[in-house]
This record gives sequence, C-alpha cells and structure tokens, in this order.
Amino acid sequence: MSQMRKDIFTGRWVIVEETTAVRPADFHFKKSLKEPTFCPFCETNEAATPPEVFAIRQAGSLPNHPGWSVRVVPNSAPHLRIEGDLCRRPGGVHELMNGIGAHEIIVETPRHDLSLRELEVPELSNVILACKARILDLERDPRLRYVLIFKNQGEQAGARTISHPISHLMALAVTPRAIKTKLLISRNYFRYKERCIYCDMLEQELDHCQRLIAENKDFAALAPFASRFPFEMLVLPKTHSSAFSSMGQEPIDNLSCILRDVLGKLDRILSNPPYNLSLQDRPLLRPRVGYWNTIEDDFHWHIEILPQVARITGFEWASGFFYNPVPPELAARCLFGSV
Amino acid sequence: MSQMRKDIFTGRWVIVEETTAVRPADFHFKKSLKEPTFCPFCETNEAATPPEVFAIRQAGSLPNHPGWSVRVVPNSAPHLRIEGDLCRRPGGVHELMNGIGAHEIIVETPRHDLSLRELEVPELSNVILACKARILDLERDPRLRYVLIFKNQGEQAGARTISHPISHLMALAVTPRAIKTKLLISRNYFRYKERCIYCDMLEQELDHCQRLIAENKDFAALAPFASRFPFEMLVLPKTHSSAFSSMGQEPIDNLSCILRDVLGKLDRILSNPPYNLSLQDRPLLRPRVGYWNTIEDDFHWHIEILPQVARITGFEWASGFFYNPVPPELAARCLFGSV
Repeated sequence: MSQMRKDIFTGRWVIVEETTAVRPADFHFKKSLKEPTFCPFCETNEAATPPEVFAIRQAGSLPNHPGWSVRVVPNSAPHLRIEGDLCRRPGGVHELMNGIGAHEIIVETPRHDLSLRELEVPELSNVILACKARILDLERDPRLRYVLIFKNQGEQAGARTISHPISHLMALAVTPRAIKTKLLISRNYFRYKERCIYCDMLEQELDHCQRLIAENKDFAALAPFASRFPFEMLVLPKTHSSAFSSMGQEPIDNLSCILRDVLGKLDRILSNPPYNLSLQDRPLLRPRVGYWNTIEDDFHWHIEILPQVARITGFEWASGFFYNPVPPELAARCLFGSV
Repeated sequence: MSQMRKDIFTGRWVIVEETTAVRPADFHFKKSLKEPTFCPFCETNEAATPPEVFAIRQAGSLPNHPGWSVRVVPNSAPHLRIEGDLCRRPGGVHELMNGIGAHEIIVETPRHDLSLRELEVPELSNVILACKARILDLERDPRLRYVLIFKNQGEQAGARTISHPISHLMALAVTPRAIKTKLLISRNYFRYKERCIYCDMLEQELDHCQRLIAENKDFAALAPFASRFPFEMLVLPKTHSSAFSSMGQEPIDNLSCILRDVLGKLDRILSNPPYNLSLQDRPLLRPRVGYWNTIEDDFHWHIEILPQVARITGFEWASGFFYNPVPPELAARCLFGSV
C-alpha cells in the first residue's frame, strides 16, 4: 500500500509508493519506449483488465465483454487502494496517512487508434456521462472528499507507453491544495461582491472577445488572462454551476461539441501537441461537514487544457511563478482563426 | 517589455511576454536542438555578453576581459527589465503590472565543459560568494522584494542549448507564492511552538538518520519526508538562519563541500540526471514594511535539488498533489551509500 505524506512546510500532499524494489538505474534517462503489441483497453481484451465498474454498452451485451462504447475499470497498478482505513497520524513532526482512494481508468473508446478529439459528439458525450456516473457513485463513500479526473495526452504530458485513448479518475480522501485555493478565493470574492468570480471574468471576456477561442449556447472556451502555458485553454459553463455532475443531457452534448472543437484547433495549429486536461470540480458533498456545503455554490466548475510545449524550469519549481512566451491574446487569435 | 499578470483565481503570477512575433510552428514538438558552436559565456568571449555586474577575478585583470573565475552578467534576453515603474493596475477584473526586475546569468566557471559538481571547493565557494554579493546589492533597490536563484541542469530540466555551466538570478517585485506559503507556515509554527519548524524537523532527521544523505559541521542534506520527486534532496544549515547572505566564509566553504558531495552522488547513481536546483531564501529586508521584518527570523533558508527523472502528469497539474514512486528512505540509502 502507498502512503500519503504531507509536506509540513507547504501543506502539499504526496503519494509515496512503499516499495523496496526500485533500482536507481530505472531512472536513468531513456529515449522513448516502444509501445507493447498487446493493449488491455482494446475491444475483445476485456479480460485483461480488472472487472469494469461502469460501461455504456449495446443492449444485450454482457459486462466485461465486447459491445461497449465507454468502459471504466480499476487501474491494475493503482496509486491508491479502496480497501482499508485512512489512519491519519503523526510521524514525529511529520504527518501521514494510508494511501486510500480509488484509481480508475476511463477507456474513452474501444478503438486504439483514435484520439479524444476524433470521437463523434455522441461518443464524447458518453465519456462525459461516464465521468458523471462515477462521481455520483463515489460520492456515496464517506471516506472520500474529492474526485479528480484528468487526461495525459502524449508522452511529454506523462502518458505511458500504451497509446489507447484513456483518462484517469482518482478519488481522494483530502481535497487537493490547488482546488482548496480556488474554493477559498471564490468564496472570499463572493462574500465581498455577492457575485461569482468566474461569472464576472466570463462576462468581461465575452464582452471584449480578445481571449475568446470558441463559444456555444452553454459553454465558452478562453485563453486565460494569466495563462501559465503557451496556448493554454479554459472551458467553462456560461451559466453558473458548481457541480459538473449536475449537467443534463443538452449541456453534456454542448460540452462535447466545444471540446471537440477546441481540441481539434489545438491539434491543427500545434500539430498534435502533448497536453494535460483536467476537470476542476467542487469537492464531494459531505452532509455532516457544514463547511464545504456553505461554499460549494460560490465555485464555478471548469476544465483546464494545458499544452506541454515548453519545459518547466527551476524558475517555476522554485517560485510557483510561471513564464509564458506567448501572450494569451495572440494564442486566442491563432486558435480562434483556425477552422 | 513583459507584463506580470495575476491569476485572480489562484493568486499565481505569470510573466507574459508582450510579443506579436510568435508563430505556432515554433511550438511544434522538436527533437533536441544542436548546440551552437559559439558560446558567449566562455573565457575570451566576454564582449558577447552585456557588461558584467560582478566578477571574481585575478588581481590586475580588467572587467569584461579574461582572468575571472565567476562572472555575473545581465541576461541578453531577459524575462524582466530593470528600467521603468511597476504600475500595478487592474484590467477589469484582472490584475497586472509591468515586468520590472533583474534577470542575470551567473557564469559558474570559464570552462565550458565542466559541470557545477566538477568544480573544486574554492571555485564553488566563489559561485556562492557571487550569489551573496548580488543579493546584497539588489537589496538596495526598493522596488524589489525577492531574489530567486536557480539552476537548470540538462535539457529535460529546461536548460537551453548552450551547455556552459550557469545559474539564473531573477530579482522580483513580488514575493513568489511558493515562498509566501513557506513563510506563513513557518511563522505560524513559531508562534505556536516558539521553535523553528525546520530546526525541529532537522533534529528528528539527524536523530533517526533514515533520510540523511550527507552531513558536515554546518550543513545537512536530506531526502525530504514528503519528496515530490524520486531522489529529491534538501540541503539546509544546521544552525538556524533565515538569510543566505548572512553566511561567513567557513559556512560558505562547508556549503561548497556538501553540494559537491551530493551532486556527485546524484550524478553517479542516476548517471548525470537533469535536475533543478533552487535557493529558498527569505525575502529582501524592507525596513519601511514592518511585516516581513517580523517574520524573517522564523524562516530557515535552504536549497532544493529536484532531479527531473519522472514526468509531471495531469494529476500534478490538476491537484498540486504529487506521486512519487521512490520512497525517500530508499533514495537516501542509495545516495548515502554511494561514495
């Protein structure tokens, strides 16, 4: 089992693997690895993964057999495990707990050779439906506080050697620091202005249009004013909403449309760049803890898309500052103009 | 001139270049670039850099001519510029200021083919002396709040194509968020316990030794309990001190010794890995602002060494959490044992 360790100097949590089997040579710099010939996520290979926890399948097809369009399975090499207790405890001055949580793989399509943006809108909507269903299910486990959904596209963005289109879901026993910061700031802003900080920003951006990348009835895609990365994108609902899982079918389809559009633009103008995509949602509702309930409505869920086309340097690591050589207005113009 | 833009949702600052000359094709994935044949940092090429702001040179040698062992020059393509005013201002809901600051290059040796850890102890001490001299000089500019010194070793850690051993110095008009977090936590701990959080941690680590990598009279090198990266290292003074620039000659020589030792261990066991190294120092003293003065003594300066041997994924970007496959105890055993 892994451990969750808290860095007492920054409040940062780290999942530390408990292993003695690591050799330093495993970490020598390697050129790209060759993709294995067998893929456990392809249709007909269902037996190669742990049994599925969710799937959208053709009527009449059997669980863990072909006939699915989206399939969610536990990760066979999970960072966190669902069995056991947290046992949060001190280690002298340090602070730790057991690595409890869920680590699942969302297999976005049975087809190995597609990328997320090549899916048709109804297929992409099924992926979003699967995410929603997993969040609602995991919300029932009282040990869990947060469901993190993210995608690593390309080796430079941390994807492993298997190129089958997948996303990761990690359900955590603590709300991540990056989310806590956003929750706190949006709550403070709401208390002061009685408005949502994301809604205010969105109104300004839709008014000026200089950082707008795409828009439809329910969603907008922007180049954030303080983009950390060249060609960074932010996708958010135009109507205030704190919970991804509250989306109905029409917004889900419109989210699929805009994601397909902006990921297509990114692939075209940057020639299929590596990127990380993540859902930034409110924490799971915990009726017995009044605190999060009081702030959940101040937050405004969104999706971050971070192209990994520049290297992170000591500057970013040392300071938490970023350096971005591409003005977001220019990035938006390139992306918006790309059809 | 660049802009400093604040992300209002997280409090993060980003230096955004103001340019219209960027083409998306510049960001297509490239294999490693070839190193140019001319290096502006080599001895006899002094005229190829802006005039030096500091150097340690042989008696009788002239500024901007050969005869130096360490040389500090302004970056010819700086992220920040020293001329002008900050003009902190709103941009509707957004927040920005001009990119004011200093961006200097510390040329660690006249010899192109050495790495930092291959320097002799007196040479490394000269590099540390140069850092100290620049901090004390920049402290006199009242617009500046923080001096960040960092090193990018290897292309994977963000080093450019010129492989001459250099470090970067950036003097900033705001204290970076990562430092602010550490200052706040060490202040709170001190108020509660009336002891330094780093001193308490150090006492425990020196007692148990399971994460100790190296030690001498003045310094200790550890694998941090909540290491974010495989083989991460922390070097800190054994006697409480908040300011790097308060070091005298003997501690400087002992810091050189331990850095030379641990960087050598890292190179040996990981086969010259890319890494980022940064100084985490207190902010510049600002007599007219009482706030920082009251907390400076709670902080304990240190050096972070982050080997870049694993990829950052969407998990880290989305959450601020980290996943580390190598337990720090195992990393310390590998490093400590390497002679």
